[in-house]
Amino acid sequence: MALSTVRIIGIDPGLRRTGWGLIICEGSRLSHVADGVVTSDQALTLAERLVQLKVQLAQVVAEWRPDEAAVEETFVNSDPRATLKLGQARGIALLVPAEAGIPVAEYAPNQIKKTVVGAGHAEKEQIHHMVKVLLPRAQPKSADAADALAIAICHAHHRGAQSLAKRLARS
Amino acid sequence: MALSTVRIIGIDPGLRRTGWGLIICEGSRLSHVADGVVTSDQALTLAERLVQLKVQLAQVVAEWRPDEAAVEETFVNSDPRATLKLGQARGIALLVPAEAGIPVAEYAPNQIKKTVVGAGHAEKEQIHHMVKVLLPRAQPKSADAADALAIAICHAHHRGAQSLAKRLARS
Repeated sequence: MALSTVRIIGIDPGLRRTGWGLIICEGSRLSHVADGVVTSDQALTLAERLVQLKVQLAQVVAEWRPDEAAVEETFVNSDPRATLKLGQARGIALLVPAEAGIPVAEYAPNQIKKTVVGAGHAEKEQIHHMVKVLLPRAQPKSADAADALAIAICHAHHRGAQSLAKRLARS
Repeated sequence: MALSTVRIIGIDPGLRRTGWGLIICEGSRLSHVADGVVTSDQALTLAERLVQLKVQLAQVVAEWRPDEAAVEETFVNSDPRATLKLGQARGIALLVPAEAGIPVAEYAPNQIKKTVVGAGHAEKEQIHHMVKVLLPRAQPKSADAADALAIAICHAHHRGAQSLAKRLARS
């Protein structure tokens, strides 16, 4: 049974606050391990803030040793400046686990909502409610950490289908 | 005079191709040192491509030891997906020199054009022409490398004003 135990980190990227959440997935059973938020100092330059996020996120990955990572794929339609800023933080969120040799999956916000709540247009509150239902021991430290746990749950549900599709493609 | 010699790397970020160019600035005299392009493999995942860019760019920084870095600040207004993609590559371009302890300046495209050509709405060809005029020994390997040299030239012209402003602010 040890082989079917997978540690998944979900990451909700943001320049000011990047949420993370780690769960264990044993077959269809999920359990909460840890969550938190890494932040960057607005008084620093953009490049220095990206280094801050990178160093803290690398510490999280080193401490909690995830097997797989999942990152939210999101953009701010209305404001290219905000989208660029988010993209930069997201680049770090993708880089850190990949540099550690961990496969990184990406999920669109409505796919995460649909998986966790059952509807693609769910409210934040519904998502956070379902995170607590699915992970009863979780006491997310913040909304960003709860979002990150939702991303990890989403990956736990889809990774089986993905590896099945890969096996079928290879056969 | 050794103190006034500064090695500047300009970086033109892009997910498929990130141009870089290194110049030496001695007072008002500029000279070309090296330029090139680092690329990522479109067949890989986004996270793996960001690692590719990061590893290659870190090698460039380790080999050419710049004292200061400058990165173009740009976004694609019309397409949030393209802006997000660019943001991710840009995050890596800012991270790599900052992680190596090098200060990173950012310049808007029209500031680069204005500095190098004298007009904020110059064509690419004009910029590349002026790069060759200002750095006669440069034979940029590609348009991205020429753009990166233009970014480095822009920083060479503005860094003096910036350090003067800092000195005045401190006094």
